[in-house]
Amino acid sequence: MVGRTPWSAADPPIGLFTCRTAMERDSLLVHNITVIMSPIATTANRQFVLASRPAGVPEESNFKLVETPIPELKDGEFLARAMYLSVDPYMRGRISQAKSYAAGVEIGGLMVGGGVARVVESKNAKFAAGDIVDVYMGWQEYVISNGKGIRKLDPSVAPVSTALGVLGGTGLTAYFGLLDVCNPKPGETVVVSGAAGAVGSIVGQIAKIKGCRTVGIAGGDDKVEWILKDCGYDAAFNYKTTEDYGAKLKELCPNGIDVYFDNVGGTITDAVFMQINTFARMSICGQISQYNNAKPEMGPRLLGMLIIARAKAQGFLITDYMARFGEGLAELSGWLREGKLKYREDIVEGFENLPKAFIGLFHGENIGKRIVKVGD
Amino acid sequence: MVGRTPWSAADPPIGLFTCRTAMERDSLLVHNITVIMSPIATTANRQFVLASRPAGVPEESNFKLVETPIPELKDGEFLARAMYLSVDPYMRGRISQAKSYAAGVEIGGLMVGGGVARVVESKNAKFAAGDIVDVYMGWQEYVISNGKGIRKLDPSVAPVSTALGVLGGTGLTAYFGLLDVCNPKPGETVVVSGAAGAVGSIVGQIAKIKGCRTVGIAGGDDKVEWILKDCGYDAAFNYKTTEDYGAKLKELCPNGIDVYFDNVGGTITDAVFMQINTFARMSICGQISQYNNAKPEMGPRLLGMLIIARAKAQGFLITDYMARFGEGLAELSGWLREGKLKYREDIVEGFENLPKAFIGLFHGENIGKRIVKVGD
Repeated sequence: MVGRTPWSAADPPIGLFTCRTAMERDSLLVHNITVIMSPIATTANRQFVLASRPAGVPEESNFKLVETPIPELKDGEFLARAMYLSVDPYMRGRISQAKSYAAGVEIGGLMVGGGVARVVESKNAKFAAGDIVDVYMGWQEYVISNGKGIRKLDPSVAPVSTALGVLGGTGLTAYFGLLDVCNPKPGETVVVSGAAGAVGSIVGQIAKIKGCRTVGIAGGDDKVEWILKDCGYDAAFNYKTTEDYGAKLKELCPNGIDVYFDNVGGTITDAVFMQINTFARMSICGQISQYNNAKPEMGPRLLGMLIIARAKAQGFLITDYMARFGEGLAELSGWLREGKLKYREDIVEGFENLPKAFIGLFHGENIGKRIVKVGD
Repeated sequence: MVGRTPWSAADPPIGLFTCRTAMERDSLLVHNITVIMSPIATTANRQFVLASRPAGVPEESNFKLVETPIPELKDGEFLARAMYLSVDPYMRGRISQAKSYAAGVEIGGLMVGGGVARVVESKNAKFAAGDIVDVYMGWQEYVISNGKGIRKLDPSVAPVSTALGVLGGTGLTAYFGLLDVCNPKPGETVVVSGAAGAVGSIVGQIAKIKGCRTVGIAGGDDKVEWILKDCGYDAAFNYKTTEDYGAKLKELCPNGIDVYFDNVGGTITDAVFMQINTFARMSICGQISQYNNAKPEMGPRLLGMLIIARAKAQGFLITDYMARFGEGLAELSGWLREGKLKYREDIVEGFENLPKAFIGLFHGENIGKRIVKVGD
């Protein structure tokens, strides 16, 4: 804070104040003092760190809001302030103790995640204040970057929030997970679980573009309605009100299932396994129904179905396709421009709501891509 | 039967008799009559048909020995008599009611299976009496074939029984299931379940030829000893005397598991899933531990491991590689000739022992390829 310190209620500060931390700002606001938060002078950062590892579904208490100073920029760096931060199911894996594909978040460590941020100060010739960037910044308000591998976003192409969704990791996950892992052919039946989710809603549309019959599984009548109406799914059902998934799949997939894009796992996936066609391809993208289990849930052993159908089940991570992101984004942008790709954002307002927004994913709250709006 | 009929104990037939059926032969033998079974004149066939569908592990009573007349040969056909018949775990799937990759055997229908047979009579210019052929003839003594797709065997290349093993479906299953599905690279760790079985013992040797580290899992100390000594496995363990498969795999696979060739399924496969490396490939060839379950056994849901490791699990059937059998057999024969490939046959004598020999597979009786010797 610039100004007199310390102060007290008996001796309140007067005039314009530039605060270093939100805590300072709040103490000033108590005194009905007009506060101007100057982004450039801001030297404190709000962050969500991992307070404890969740047992089961994460709770807000697993996360702790902390303030940390923002270091001085060095030459070549820029400082950016979050506009949108992403919450995604995969983050559950990063805060668990179990082995995962990436180093987990340590207790006290910053939560990971993608973000769209606006440059507020720059000592990097390639980035100027005002530029909007796509940066894997984690759950924090400010990030300092050396600019390496950072993508500038052009708001005239699409709303910049789409860099977290259809024109970002989500869209690319749908794109490569469907096309590269499953190679769907025209006329084939593609079943998608979590079909109204961020990835699933895009998968169905790409499958349609490729000439497939698409069948979506989602958890809610509103979700089913949306994917049928806006995402062009040929058929869909609400698993929460369907008793026999197998019978329903048989009804909706009269020619069997050639491709399965799995975001969910569990009993839904069991039912799909029993209906796959010869040479079926299953892209295992997510297992949201399983992420909160401390120990693997028990289910029927179904590997034998892979033999019967000569099918494959393949996991993938979008980061493995980094060298091909350009190709994917070009296709996705093209389809978006041509009106072939619809997307829906589920915006939660306020940095402080990040944990709540994240936890809601496991209750199926979102339709489309859930994003937290942090600033402008 | 050629001769006087009917006959009775009071009026026994005399002279040389050529019997049409084994039953006739037996009634003659009762009378101490010398019987010459003329292969050419033989017009009865012994067959095992499915008497009932097994519940759980098959029992001998699920099979019934019947005699059927052998029809007259038409032009272009030949008649061959079984020398060796194959018993294989996959046959369990064919006699179950559950959906499988091939039409099941109906009640009363001939059991399916491969065989090596000697031509006894021919009206096909390409096959002469005495020729030995590889023919998918089922559990019967005689087969009539039009010769299409029938491979003649050359006893000078290898014992003809190998056409049911290392130089037949078994070897080809190992070859394509390992090389085509998993593409193992030098230095990678290849784990094989059912490693002392017909397929598994070959898989380990091919993996060694390809420069991999091989770790076998088998059900018996004698089996472990054999695969270490003769099949060149780098390490192996007896799952029947090992409590913690996971710990043992960790010990024997210090660099993790890159390739898994699964013949067994169940808890062994669970343990492997937990140790796979990034981009691991798992060839699901068999699930012998599961074949006798009426309903899928419950086990931990492990598809999430495929995501973490970006791994694939892929089922396959050797019949899908038919167009490439020549390539596979050429390689396998070459390795056999060069002494790089050892094989072991587990010969059960006698046509009537087919059901028993088959059932024994599910008790892990065999080391190497189990074959039933029927005739010369």
